[in-house]
This record gives sequence, structure tokens and C-alpha cells, in this order.
Amino acid sequence: MVGGGPDAFIGEVHRKAARMDGGIEIVAGCFSRHKKKSEETGRLLRLDPSRVYSNFEQLAEKEERLPEGARADFVSVVTPNNSHFPIAKTLLGSGFHVMCEKPMTFTVEEARELQKLVKQSGKVFGLMHNYTGYPMVKLARDMVRGGELGEIRKIVVQYPQGWLATPIEKTGSVQARWRTDPAQSGAAGALGDIGTHCENLSEYITGLRITKVCADVTTFVKGRRLDDDANCLLRFENGARGILHVSQIAIGEENNLAIWIYGSKKSLEWHQEDPNCLHVKEPDGPARVYRRGNPYVAKRSSAAARATRLPSGHPEAFIEAFANLYRNFADSIRASLARKKPDPLAADFPGVDDGLRGMLFIDTVLASAKSTDKWTSMLS
Amino acid sequence: MVGGGPDAFIGEVHRKAARMDGGIEIVAGCFSRHKKKSEETGRLLRLDPSRVYSNFEQLAEKEERLPEGARADFVSVVTPNNSHFPIAKTLLGSGFHVMCEKPMTFTVEEARELQKLVKQSGKVFGLMHNYTGYPMVKLARDMVRGGELGEIRKIVVQYPQGWLATPIEKTGSVQARWRTDPAQSGAAGALGDIGTHCENLSEYITGLRITKVCADVTTFVKGRRLDDDANCLLRFENGARGILHVSQIAIGEENNLAIWIYGSKKSLEWHQEDPNCLHVKEPDGPARVYRRGNPYVAKRSSAAARATRLPSGHPEAFIEAFANLYRNFADSIRASLARKKPDPLAADFPGVDDGLRGMLFIDTVLASAKSTDKWTSMLS
Amino acid sequence: MVGGGPDAFIGEVHRKAARMDGGIEIVAGCFSRHKKKSEETGRLLRLDPSRVYSNFEQLAEKEERLPEGARADFVSVVTPNNSHFPIAKTLLGSGFHVMCEKPMTFTVEEARELQKLVKQSGKVFGLMHNYTGYPMVKLARDMVRGGELGEIRKIVVQYPQGWLATPIEKTGSVQARWRTDPAQSGAAGALGDIGTHCENLSEYITGLRITKVCADVTTFVKGRRLDDDANCLLRFENGARGILHVSQIAIGEENNLAIWIYGSKKSLEWHQEDPNCLHVKEPDGPARVYRRGNPYVAKRSSAAARATRLPSGHPEAFIEAFANLYRNFADSIRASLARKKPDPLAADFPGVDDGLRGMLFIDTVLASAKSTDKWTSMLS
Amino acid sequence: MVGGGPDAFIGEVHRKAARMDGGIEIVAGCFSRHKKKSEETGRLLRLDPSRVYSNFEQLAEKEERLPEGARADFVSVVTPNNSHFPIAKTLLGSGFHVMCEKPMTFTVEEARELQKLVKQSGKVFGLMHNYTGYPMVKLARDMVRGGELGEIRKIVVQYPQGWLATPIEKTGSVQARWRTDPAQSGAAGALGDIGTHCENLSEYITGLRITKVCADVTTFVKGRRLDDDANCLLRFENGARGILHVSQIAIGEENNLAIWIYGSKKSLEWHQEDPNCLHVKEPDGPARVYRRGNPYVAKRSSAAARATRLPSGHPEAFIEAFANLYRNFADSIRASLARKKPDPLAADFPGVDDGLRGMLFIDTVLASAKSTDKWTSMLS
Repeated sequence: MVGGGPDAFIGEVHRKAARMDGGIEIVAGCFSRHKKKSEETGRLLRLDPSRVYSNFEQLAEKEERLPEGARADFVSVVTPNNSHFPIAKTLLGSGFHVMCEKPMTFTVEEARELQKLVKQSGKVFGLMHNYTGYPMVKLARDMVRGGELGEIRKIVVQYPQGWLATPIEKTGSVQARWRTDPAQSGAAGALGDIGTHCENLSEYITGLRITKVCADVTTFVKGRRLDDDANCLLRFENGARGILHVSQIAIGEENNLAIWIYGSKKSLEWHQEDPNCLHVKEPDGPARVYRRGNPYVAKRSSAAARATRLPSGHPEAFIEAFANLYRNFADSIRASLARKKPDPLAADFPGVDDGLRGMLFIDTVLASAKSTDKWTSMLS
Repeated sequence: MVGGGPDAFIGEVHRKAARMDGGIEIVAGCFSRHKKKSEETGRLLRLDPSRVYSNFEQLAEKEERLPEGARADFVSVVTPNNSHFPIAKTLLGSGFHVMCEKPMTFTVEEARELQKLVKQSGKVFGLMHNYTGYPMVKLARDMVRGGELGEIRKIVVQYPQGWLATPIEKTGSVQARWRTDPAQSGAAGALGDIGTHCENLSEYITGLRITKVCADVTTFVKGRRLDDDANCLLRFENGARGILHVSQIAIGEENNLAIWIYGSKKSLEWHQEDPNCLHVKEPDGPARVYRRGNPYVAKRSSAAARATRLPSGHPEAFIEAFANLYRNFADSIRASLARKKPDPLAADFPGVDDGLRGMLFIDTVLASAKSTDKWTSMLS
Repeated sequence: MVGGGPDAFIGEVHRKAARMDGGIEIVAGCFSRHKKKSEETGRLLRLDPSRVYSNFEQLAEKEERLPEGARADFVSVVTPNNSHFPIAKTLLGSGFHVMCEKPMTFTVEEARELQKLVKQSGKVFGLMHNYTGYPMVKLARDMVRGGELGEIRKIVVQYPQGWLATPIEKTGSVQARWRTDPAQSGAAGALGDIGTHCENLSEYITGLRITKVCADVTTFVKGRRLDDDANCLLRFENGARGILHVSQIAIGEENNLAIWIYGSKKSLEWHQEDPNCLHVKEPDGPARVYRRGNPYVAKRSSAAARATRLPSGHPEAFIEAFANLYRNFADSIRASLARKKPDPLAADFPGVDDGLRGMLFIDTVLASAKSTDKWTSMLS
Repeated sequence: MVGGGPDAFIGEVHRKAARMDGGIEIVAGCFSRHKKKSEETGRLLRLDPSRVYSNFEQLAEKEERLPEGARADFVSVVTPNNSHFPIAKTLLGSGFHVMCEKPMTFTVEEARELQKLVKQSGKVFGLMHNYTGYPMVKLARDMVRGGELGEIRKIVVQYPQGWLATPIEKTGSVQARWRTDPAQSGAAGALGDIGTHCENLSEYITGLRITKVCADVTTFVKGRRLDDDANCLLRFENGARGILHVSQIAIGEENNLAIWIYGSKKSLEWHQEDPNCLHVKEPDGPARVYRRGNPYVAKRSSAAARATRLPSGHPEAFIEAFANLYRNFADSIRASLARKKPDPLAADFPGVDDGLRGMLFIDTVLASAKSTDKWTSMLS
């Protein structure tokens, strides 16, 4: 692992998720740019001190030299956005498979280059768009892509949060500080941090690409240097209309990612804070509440079944969704090590192409925000 | 009453709402352009046959001649949109107070003229934006306008419906037929029918005017002549951002009008299909669920208390909200008859100014939909 | 109407419900034992002063003498429990149809006598178990009685309220005062006021009679003379098990009447505070949320369709359920006046037999509460 | 670990929960009475084959001989109920700390003996009443025990499931087979499996002991040898009244454990299927929805804060609650190994005394079910 030191949030989530199923073990890491902090985390994780590194270059170099079987199979990159690219590039260069946090890179150019590097390397590259790991999201995808909703007409996706409603980046919040710092986060704030999840979730479920964006992007908190709110109209490649809105100043909202997809035959609705339910609606019949863990879900979606650990009524949540990405990612690496094609179900995790989409989305929204034209096209 | 014959929907809702509290009695009407249908409704309502009229001009003329006390005090206009203006104009001219369905007129020009006529006449004019009649909407308004939410930053308002997801206007639905017919509905479909409710609800609660609109307006059902879906970005006069979206092709949605208002201090959320609750959220405290009929609601809002008939837990709903507008409207007429100023709480119902706002909103959204510019200004 | 004066709650609910549909007009009344109060209410209702009476005997006598057509067709009895019987008896004796509040009488003996009197009189007698008026309760009944749930195995029914958690009967609450006064309410407090609704709702939906009761009845508030909490185990005639619990000291609960019915094939669930939904659950399929006003509901239940005024998504609530009982009651009277059999759908309202069941239920629970035996049989 | 082989359900849940935080490693086990199955699981877990045992006696004997540091520190017992006692007894005798599934033993006598053995051994003994591991349950406990609800008056606790509504024990369900087999499960079916969770949760949150029970226990499915439904009235030591009901034939219910606690000042409500919320209600104020992960929760309950891994809005669920028990249990073992007193917060997990309470509860309910007396006392 690179990143995930004492002040970090998401690194330990990666570790819990990776550990849960017993198929992944953490063996080495560079957890902070500060040697002492990195060592402190290494001790907490009971790692061999010789495999706790001071910087990622050292990690890449030294681990690469270890014999196969002893060396780390893959590296998770959980640092702030600005360092994803150089780290991932170095690791790929040293022959490691890579799991990377989103947004994938700092710029679109880096994303395009990383895409090339991944394809050239033949390594497995995962991107932690964790919400695609939820079983009911997979059921939704299988329903939509299987045609059950008919032609998709309208998509509404939102991700309101309230934690940055005041300038807590100035009063000691480490998480707030780097996320509102253009040098670490890139050109986008809320847009990059949570907007990309909306974009990814929409495209993951529907298989439809966003083609045009019309955006209104705002920084509400005085003195903040990046956006903390964004509202967008969308057009999709099949002509579907969309609304995407995210906020970090929506007081009282926690992590209220939700999506509504309206088709010509049926509709569906999913809420991240109630992740075990999928609401499916029909033109003239009672709405149905599909709930994770039931046989009728497994029958409809092998991917949902595979992503399920517990019977219905024993709720699963955020860490398990994370763990589902790790499980598929690890199984794909195992297939790669065995020189086999992975099971198509194991190949179901976001990768470098999704990462490029995310960067293009950020770019397009920011361009639209500055434009007086209604529509800005999103490149592919 | 003008309108509300055998095939009508909203006319009987007006009658139920008007009757409920015992302060209003229906004494005369022209319920249809077809004499037989008008008479049929008149019989059902046990009206004096001499006061069931064949057309609204006759109603205005004959009722005007009746002595005060015997003649109708006011007339409700519940016809399709295209006839609101000529009927209201005639009735005002004959000295009647008028309650009118929304959208108020067929065009902005008519709306401006009606505004003048109402002001000149001195008559009481009510517009049936019924959702403002809900007690929890009034509590929301009093909280927002009282400053409890701080500066308003963001407003999300939606009204998805699914009933027009297929072309039922071609298969016998009377309600669908006139609503999708430009000759009867005007230039807008969903936008006029339900979009104006969103616009009105936002402005009613916040007291903030929409200044700019960026709209994506769509007709999804082939052969339909008016819009059945609209997505808008909004700007409000204080700089607040907004999203407004309505649909009539959102399968499985019934009447899912809902509003989220985010301030710098607190947020709130209200759902028309669960109208007895108002959710209020704080930056660092548990969300609070205010419920209609409780003493703590009455303490916070005299308007909510006045709009409440039953104790908490005995749910009130759509017809009662309608009835609240009628009650305030009737009390204002009583004050007018007594040549007194109405109680300010009784003056709390939408009127001709709101009707003009609604028509301007439709106009602006349709202009924006055709424009390649991002923002279209909304006149006042 | 007898009762429903200035301090009353339920009388005005009866009037609103009766008025709403335009088929019932209030023409006479005795609204209070205090002449002035009765007159005050009469004036508010704009009644002919000669038909506002000082006591119910006078009302019965004078109205009886009026010519048919002029005289009241029926009388609603909305007084405290102790006077229901003498009033209803007198009114039936004078040839009036009667609508009566629940619990029907003061004692089981009165209930049995009233049952006889009603049968002898041939008059229409309605009992205001208003919750049976909800459309989704009617759908539930039609589903259960139609066999869709299979054999009924278990019924859980509850009615928690919190309004009597402190001794507000001592600090001026008129509603609390008579409800906690044995001289006015009878032998039961919460049990009579809300327990009878639970009993009635269970039997109405399932058509199964309670045969045995095991009860734990408590008065939590010091100095209170009647029960404010009751928990019961039930046995039904078919062997089904049940739980029934009511409370008036359950702080924060408003009117949380709810019922869960578990069959050998399906289950269902209904909540009075969310009355437009009926939840139906299957062994291996997603739960279905039936919502009032949809065509698929009308197809399944003519009774639900008849009890529906508004399309789906326009919520209906408490007063409308009340009005449904009044409408059926009035239609049955119309049939009686026309010497016809009423439409079976119009005959769907609780009557004197249900009233006797309620009184037997109270008696049985109170006997069980005092008994050291587990089971106490409920007579029929 | 003893138990948790290929057909097991709960064993792997234990492993996932134990692994998640990185503080516990599985090093040895006897996963099945069938050697091959035990080895199969051992391989899946990548254990040293020499530490995969054929029976628990062997495990105890061989692991005991390993040097400290190498030997397992504790053993989790996740077998069917009938073997808990002999296994736990042997393990304690060999000096192991023990984590045991519930119900703790087969009989009350075994439970009393195990209580003695644990106290004599000085070992740490944990009982997997996992629902006490949820942060919002800990918040509830701290609120109730801190007096915020006033005197507790009424407790309603339920655990309906539907998975045994048909005789699936006859058609291949391994989980159903042992749970409905008296030889493996003991005298109780649903009562032991889920009834004990209700009993434990009530006593954990309130600190009040059940003193009397009145039970109606049923087997609905023909041919089944143990109960699949139980309804109980309860009395608590302080005079509070209670209702406890469980079912495994409640079609459509998944794992709907829920509790309502009504005090003289406030009430609260928690639902296992929505575990991140705690509803707190007041006599005259809006209900409050406390949500896990917020600073205001941490301020109120150190135990809740300690049991929280993720910020608010990132839902946590079943496995995390399990993991919380494991974390506290492991920290207590660490303290024991260090010959220190554990942090009081680490001592917060159910133990042998709770296990005895559970067995007494089963015994009392079954005695009540056979008795014609209303109340059966629960011994302590």
C-alpha cells in the first residue's frame, strides 16, 4: 500500500475491505511521506519493518527485487489525487498490479497516459469506484442492460453531503484540507471527490455514455479554492436526459448518493444509505422492493449473488462493497498469475477506462461551468 | 363554479374541499359547454335548475342580477387553461370574486392583463396552487423566512409523475387529452401542469425569486405535441442555486413533488406524498422530524396551526390542503364583504401575482429550451 | 347530531366527513347538555335555531313530528361513552337511523339490548370504527378473505399513543378528562378508546373471531382511574395466534395503529399513519407496495375503488376514511328509504354486531387482567 | 475455531468479523466432525495442515502443548447448540479463552456449570449476542442507563423471520435441519435461536431483568419438532411491562429484530435492518434521528464511538457489529495476557452471565407455554 498513514481515512477502509475475506494480506507499505508516520502505521499493522518504506520509489524498487511469492502481488494507491499518476506509473513499471483511488489522476493528460501504460503493461488495474461493488447496484445494472426497463429515458443522480458547509479546512480537518487544496486535489473539489462517483455509477448501471454537459458549479464557502457544489444537466448517447448534482454544503446530508433511472417500461431507484434495497416500479403494478440476499435476487443477477456474503436481513454495507471490488480485483490477478482469462464475473470492477471517463467528466463540467454556451461536449 | 362536469377531475376536488368546513355552499354553476352535461352535474349537486347555466357569460349575467345574499359570492374557474382568462375577466367584470385553477392563463400577456383587472376590480382573486395549503409547507416557510436556515444556498425541487409514459391521450383518457393539446393547455405540457407548482412552492417557502433559468425540455412520447419532461438549473435573486425537474414519463412515480432547501445554518426537506412530516437537519445534531398537529408546530407557526384540523397522528392530506386555500380565500371575501382588512393569516393564499410568476416561468423555460445560451433571464 | 359542542373533538370530524361528498347535510342537533353551548354550535353551523335542541329527548320528539323530507333522516351520536346507549335507544324508538361513536355502549348488557333494539327497529345503525374506511384496509380485507394469504397464522396489531403519558386530565384537557373518568368512559380507558379499534380492525380484515385473551393491563400514571396501557395475547377461532397492544403512555407515538397479518402463503402490513400503502410480502419474491388510487388496486378490490376519491399520489387520509363510512351508511339509508336492498358495497360499514364484539372484548380483557389463569374466553 | 465447515453459515461470519480489523488471525481449527471437510476448510483458509484437527479434544490437547505465542490465544465455538458446553468446558480446561455462539448451552444445568468453570478459570469468555455490537444499540444503552428516558415503563421487542414458513428442513436446508432438530438445538427452536437475542437486547439496553413471563409458543409447520413462533408478555424487575415476540414463519420478514423502549420522559426505537439510525422521541418536540458516525453521537456515548469505523453516511452493518464484539473480546484477552484490567469499554461484550440468562429465559418461556397459570417466574 502507498498512503493510508495515521491521518488518513480511506487507507484503513481499503485494508479492512481487503482483509475481510481472507484472500488478501498486507505485507508491505509506504504509508506516509514522513518516515516516522510510515513506521508507526507499519508497527500497528505488525509488518516486517524491512518492508515499511520511506517513499514509493523505494517500495517499487525493493519489492520488485523480492522473489515471486515473497514480493507483493499488487499495490493499493490511496494517496491524495496529485500523486496517483506518478505512483501508479512507477508501480506498473516495476511490474505490479495496481488498485488506485479515484479520481484516477490529476489531469486528463495523465489519465490518457496511464491508460496507455496499463494496456502496454498487461497488468491488472483497479479503480476504487466502490459504489459499483454493492450487490443491488449490480442487480440494477443487470436489469437495465438486460432490457427490463426498456429504452432509458431519464437518469437523476445525486450525491449531497454537508460536511464542508463551513470552512473546516481552516480549523484542523486533515480530510478537508487536502480535498480543498488545488495542489493536492486538482482542478475540482466536490466534483472530483463525489461527482465522479455519480458519473461512474450512471454509466456503470446503464452502459450509456454521457455526451454533453451543462453545468453550474459553485463555491459557497468564502475563501475556499475549489468548488463545493455542482448542478448539471446531462445528455446521454442514446438521447436520454439526465440531472446530476453534488454538494458538500448540503447541511444534514451525509453520503446521500442516490440514483433514479426511468425507462420506457420500468423505473428503478437506489440509495446508497439504504444499500440493501432496490426499488423497481412498473406502469400498472405495485412497486417492488428487491432486497439483497434473497434467492430471487441471485436468480436475476449472478454478479449480485457473487457480491453477497450474508443472507437477507443481515445487512451488508460500505466495507463489503469495497471488499467486493477487492475480491474481483484479486481474483483477476490470480487468473493473471495463472495465465488464465479471469471469470467474467471477476472482471467486474472499474478500471483505467473508467478512470479516464472520470477525468474527462471533471474537465467537461469545469469547461461548461466557464462557458456561456448551454452544452459542452464530453470527449471520449 | 365554471367547469367541473362529468369527465372532470379537479372540479369535484374543489367542491369537496370547499364543502368540508361548512363555510362554503355551492349554489350555481356552468359545469360543461354541453348543456346536458352541465345539467347532469347540477342535478347530482341538487342545485336549483334555474341556476345551472349553459355558458359562463350567462352565469355571470344572471347571477349578477340576483340580490346580494342570494347571488353567488364567488366563482371557481376549473376549466382547461385556455379559457381561464376570458372567464375570469368576465366574472371580475360582473363583480364576482374569483378562485382560478393554475396555470392562471394561456399567455403571459393575458396574465399581465388579468393582474391589472384584479387590481382595478378590488375583488379577491385566488389561484389554486394547492400545495401551499399544507401545514408543513407553511411551517417550512415560516422557518425559512424567519431566518432559521440562515442564508439560502441551494434549492432542489422536483415533481415526477409517470401517468403519461405512454400516449394515453390517444386511447380515451380525457385528462390526458386536454393536457397534451396545445389548443387547450397552452405552450407547455408538464411544465405548465406541474412545473408551475415547483416554481410556486420554491418561491412561496423561500420568498426568493428565480432570476435565471437554464432548461432542457423534452417530449419523450412520440406524437405528443407538448413537453412531458423538463430539467432546469436555476439561479435565485440572492445568488442561491437551484435544480427543478418535472416529468410525466417517470414510470412508477405518482405525485412525487418534493423540495430540499439548504441554508448556511440548517436544511429542510418536504415530500408531498408524506405531507405530515417536515424534516429539519442541523450541522451537528440529529435530524428532527416535525409532524403536523403537535403543539410544538403550532408554537412555531400560526399559519400551520390555522391550517390544521386534526391532532397529530390523524393524517391530513390533499383535500385538506385544498380546503385550507378555500378557507383563507373565503375568509378574505368575508372581510371584503364586511369592508374590513382580512386577518393576515387569512390573506395567505396564492393570487394573481403568483399566477403571473407562473406564466413568466413557463415562458422563460420554453425560451431557454430553444436557446443555445446557458442562461435565460426571467422577467418579473 | 347529538354531541359535538364547543369543547368536543370528534363531533366536528363527523361533520367534515359527512359534508365532504355533498350527500349529507346537517339540519338539526343537540350539541351540548348546556343550552348556551348547544346554541353557540348551532349558530356556527348556521342551523335554524328552532332545530337546535337542549337535550336529546327533545330532539327525538320534535324531529319525529316533522314531516318526512323535512325531518332529519338520521342522527349521529358523538357524546362520551356513558350516554351512547340511552341516546341511541331513544332515537331508534323515534324512528331515526343512527350513527354512533365507539365503544358502542357503557356495558355489555347495554350492547346486547341495543343489538336487539336495532334488529327490531329495522333501522340502519352505523358504528364509527373509522379505520375500516381506509381503502387499503379494504384491499387487505379482500386479499385475506379471498385466500391470497393462505391460512392465517399470526396477527400482530398495535395502537400506541403518547398523549396521556402525564396526568393532563388534571390540567385542563377536556379530551383527557372524560376519557380517564370511569363515570363517562366506562370500565376501560385506553382499552375502550383504542383497543377496540385493534380488535375491530383484526376481525374486519381477517373475518376471524378472537376466542381467547390473555391480558396484562396497567395504569402507569399515578392517580389515574382507568388503564393507560394493555398488552394481550390472542387466540383466533381458526387457531391463529395474535398479539394486541395499546398504550397512551408511549411517548412520541401519535396514532400508530398498525397491523401485520402472516398467512401460510403471504403476509401483509398496514400502518394508519401511512394509510395509502399496503405492503404485501411473498416467500420468494420482492415485497410489493400497493398504493391507493392505482388501477391495479381497483382491479383487486371494488370496495377499495369505491372508497377512493383521488388518483394515486394525491394522498387521502383520516377524514376521507371517516367519510367513506358516512357515504356507505347514507347510501344504505337511501336504499332503506327506497325500500330496496342496499348495494353490498354500501353495506360495508361497522354496525351493532361489531359494537357488541367491542364491548365483549373490553369485558374479556378486563376479566383476564384480573385473572391468574392464562386464558380467558371471549363470548360471542 | 471449532465448527464453521463447508455447510456452516455463522462460522465464516465469525472469521470475516475477526479478520476485518487486523488484530486477530486464524491459526488453527477443527471445522467439522468429518475429517475431510475440516481439511477442506483448512485449505481454503491456508492454514498449516498440522493445525487442522479432526476433533475438538485433539485441538485442545495439541494447541495447549504449543509454546505461548505460537499456540492459539482463544478458540471460537460455532457448532450447533448441543456441543457448545462440552467443547467450551474442554477448551477452558486447556487454558484457552473462549468465544461461544448462542444459545450458550443445551440446558440450564450446563449453563450454571459453565458459569462456574469460567469464573474458576479466570479466562475471558465471550458470547456472540452480536446485536449488542451495533453502535446505535450502545448509544441506546447509554441513554437509557444514563436516565435520559426517565423510568422505563414499557418495552416491545420482536424478531420475526419468515425463512421457516415451510418445512425446508425436509428438503435439504442444512441450516434448517439442525435448527429444528431437538437433538442438536435443544428444547427450543425459534425461541432459542432468535428469542434469546430479544431477551439479551432488552436487558443489555435497559439493565432491567425480566422477572416473569407469560408465553404462547407454537409450532405452525406440520411435522416440525420445535417451536417456530412465540409470543410473550413480560414483567421486568422495576415493574415495566413488556412484549416479546419472535417467529420463523412470518413470511416476508427477513431479520426484523426491533425494539421500542418507552420511558416516563422519552422513548426510543431501533431496527436491526436499519442499524445506523436510532429514533428518539420526546413528549413535545420533534422526533430525533440519531445517526451513527456523527460527532454528536460520539459525544453521547464513548462505547458507540469506539464501535464506529466509518464516518456518517458510509453505512456499517452486521459484520461490523460482530467485529465489535471480537475487538472488545480480543482487547480483553490482551489485557489478560498483560495481566492488566481491561479498559471498561473493552469489557463491553456479552459473557457467561448473559448466557445463563438466555438459558433461563428459554426454560421459563417453555414452562410458561405448558402452564395454565398466567405468570411464570424467571429465576436468576
